[in-house]
Amino acid sequence: MTATLLSNAADQSLRARAAKVVPNGMYGHESTILLPASYPQFFQRAEGAHIWDADGNRYLDFMCAYGPNLLGYNNRRVNDVATAQLALGDTMTGPSPHFVELAEALVGMVSHADWAMFCKNGTDATTMAMTAARAQTGKRRILVADGAYHGAAPWCTPIPFGVVPEERAFIAKYHYNDIASLEAAVAEAGDDLAAIFAAPFKHDAFVDQLLPDPAYARRARELCDQTGAMLIVDDVRAGFRLIRDCSWELVGVRPDMSCWGKSFANGHPISALLGNDRCRMGASQIYATGSFWFAAVPMAAGIETLKILRESDYLEQSIRLGTVWRDGLDRAARDHGFVLRQTGPVQMPQILFEDDPDFRVGFAWGEAMLQRGVYVHPWHNMFFCAAMTEADIAFTLDAADYAFGAVRAQLGSLEPHPVVMMMLGAMAGEH
Amino acid sequence: MTATLLSNAADQSLRARAAKVVPNGMYGHESTILLPASYPQFFQRAEGAHIWDADGNRYLDFMCAYGPNLLGYNNRRVNDVATAQLALGDTMTGPSPHFVELAEALVGMVSHADWAMFCKNGTDATTMAMTAARAQTGKRRILVADGAYHGAAPWCTPIPFGVVPEERAFIAKYHYNDIASLEAAVAEAGDDLAAIFAAPFKHDAFVDQLLPDPAYARRARELCDQTGAMLIVDDVRAGFRLIRDCSWELVGVRPDMSCWGKSFANGHPISALLGNDRCRMGASQIYATGSFWFAAVPMAAGIETLKILRESDYLEQSIRLGTVWRDGLDRAARDHGFVLRQTGPVQMPQILFEDDPDFRVGFAWGEAMLQRGVYVHPWHNMFFCAAMTEADIAFTLDAADYAFGAVRAQLGSLEPHPVVMMMLGAMAGEH
Repeated sequence: MTATLLSNAADQSLRARAAKVVPNGMYGHESTILLPASYPQFFQRAEGAHIWDADGNRYLDFMCAYGPNLLGYNNRRVNDVATAQLALGDTMTGPSPHFVELAEALVGMVSHADWAMFCKNGTDATTMAMTAARAQTGKRRILVADGAYHGAAPWCTPIPFGVVPEERAFIAKYHYNDIASLEAAVAEAGDDLAAIFAAPFKHDAFVDQLLPDPAYARRARELCDQTGAMLIVDDVRAGFRLIRDCSWELVGVRPDMSCWGKSFANGHPISALLGNDRCRMGASQIYATGSFWFAAVPMAAGIETLKILRESDYLEQSIRLGTVWRDGLDRAARDHGFVLRQTGPVQMPQILFEDDPDFRVGFAWGEAMLQRGVYVHPWHNMFFCAAMTEADIAFTLDAADYAFGAVRAQLGSLEPHPVVMMMLGAMAGEH
Repeated sequence: MTATLLSNAADQSLRARAAKVVPNGMYGHESTILLPASYPQFFQRAEGAHIWDADGNRYLDFMCAYGPNLLGYNNRRVNDVATAQLALGDTMTGPSPHFVELAEALVGMVSHADWAMFCKNGTDATTMAMTAARAQTGKRRILVADGAYHGAAPWCTPIPFGVVPEERAFIAKYHYNDIASLEAAVAEAGDDLAAIFAAPFKHDAFVDQLLPDPAYARRARELCDQTGAMLIVDDVRAGFRLIRDCSWELVGVRPDMSCWGKSFANGHPISALLGNDRCRMGASQIYATGSFWFAAVPMAAGIETLKILRESDYLEQSIRLGTVWRDGLDRAARDHGFVLRQTGPVQMPQILFEDDPDFRVGFAWGEAMLQRGVYVHPWHNMFFCAAMTEADIAFTLDAADYAFGAVRAQLGSLEPHPVVMMMLGAMAGEH
């Protein structure tokens, strides 16, 4: 089969208009500035497992909106509830009864949790966790794994332009899964340790993913118990994608707080901080609020999403399909002489190419997949959703066979992406 | 007329459940912890100018969700657009074309703006303004008026439990409308001034509101021009409630950036930072993002809301009705021997009682108004919405006549609110 060049006139026209009225034309994690040139910036529609770009090209979408799409875009049950609630009331002068019901549902599902607070951004939840930990302990030092993404606020943004160093005072680093480095960071904190942050697994961009070593997770728990610090699992990205509970139940470790967002209302805007009674006092002291935090629609959508998560086999299906996908991609790559580094849980896969330090092969493969109607990401972990089918996986593997062949054919003439080169240079300079 | 005691069994039951699964039972600006005991915490419905609490009691709502309700709850035009867009796509793997259209609409309406960035919380917009100003100028000092609310992040939260002083380094204070204090703060910043923040008018809680002195606004502009600093108007609360432009157009002063939120999508969750080309570079350098920031539904709702703002007389009507309300309340208060301090724009009124330092009279009046079906706030500015009618104002003035009489009758036996007393004590300790 041959690839057809996709039309992108509408996307180009929107980019030209955006360049005038948006700094850089776009910003944040959905900007295509670090993606291959043919990746569309704008999308007009999403349904089930598919997205349509501004030019009407359809893609099977393995990004799932960078996480929020868990059950499939426009899930009928969730959106019927949301639409009905919108007519009754959304942002009002106080929260709706759904606030209580959703808090009860999350506390009922997440083993470590005794209480819930809702917010809008994942960053809200991680910032509240940090502040609640400091309020609870009266201590200041916060440990985070180097390279981990915990949000875009001054204390945690990965690109600290405009941030003064004082805003990151007392934020210290350790290496994920490295007990010795964690112990060293705790020792350095002395009697000033407020919290240890951990991602449920290492899902940093541009590098291989790493599952948590249970010994590391247990040691983090012990160190918090010994020092009085709070253990915080940032489940914003992986929440309910690994287990119907906090992700670290899989390694038998219960944090004091966990941060949630993205997908627990299937894309309706809500995030949450959950915690146990060990830090309830700190959580009750902090001031945290936002204009839309008490809105009823995302809470009604969240209650319905959680019901579906409890009743359906969305999780088992994503693991089954993810396994077929991973095995099939490995085979197809080998057939064309490539070695893939596929890491992380199969349902949240990261795909990098061996011997591809500047990502030029991965970028070319992504563009070839895109031409065949499959949206994959060359350096960020991807996501499965419950609307994906065996036919979708077969379609993907067929596209992959084409794409590996296409990349093989043009291997000698590939160029690295200029912005990626700049970024890699900056990252190298940091280390 | 006599007041009937409202049923609150459902609200009490929800509070009891919430106390178990939410720290303090509720948090943030919609918590009733600083409101009279009979104020309901939970609401089940909102339509037009009215809200219904969990027990089905209906109130004419002068809080308008603390701002987001500008055109009336469940505005048909806006919510039809939102519902249709939800079926097409909300949070997707990239922004929709509505992103560009909404940016163009805002830049078209707001005179000082050359560009727009969207986010979710008002706090997101003010934090991005601060960070962009520092990125643009390479300087650190940020001036804010004392008592002004610019959000709940560590750098600006009014209740800094769990915040370390370093997170507020380089945040300095001046007195609103006080040119000498502004000049002194600028002088103290030396060559390190990044930005001056100003509310469009002084709308702090618990105190009289104050319109901006044009000489102060002009001086702030001059000082920014002389030093290279950025002038930032925080229009999150007042945006499009005073003028169909940035609020400081009313005093003839254009900021470099303005922060927006709450109402420009009539309650759908979106906020924005607007700016001019003087700080476009800084805005293009900062990293700012959130899981739901690129969602299409609130942007479609925003485009429709802005259309209605341009086409309708919502603003002129709110000023007309607000004037009737203010005059009528003054008269009714005097009839019962009270003197009101009504401040701020008539469509964003603050009502305090003369000789009521601990708010016990205002609290009692609020409870009496509530019994008659009118939701007023005893210490926060209120809001008009376009769904309010002359009949609503007449209903309110009738209720007010009853409420002033009821408070007069129980004046000797009123007690101050215990949490308010704690808070006033803490505030006094700060000064």
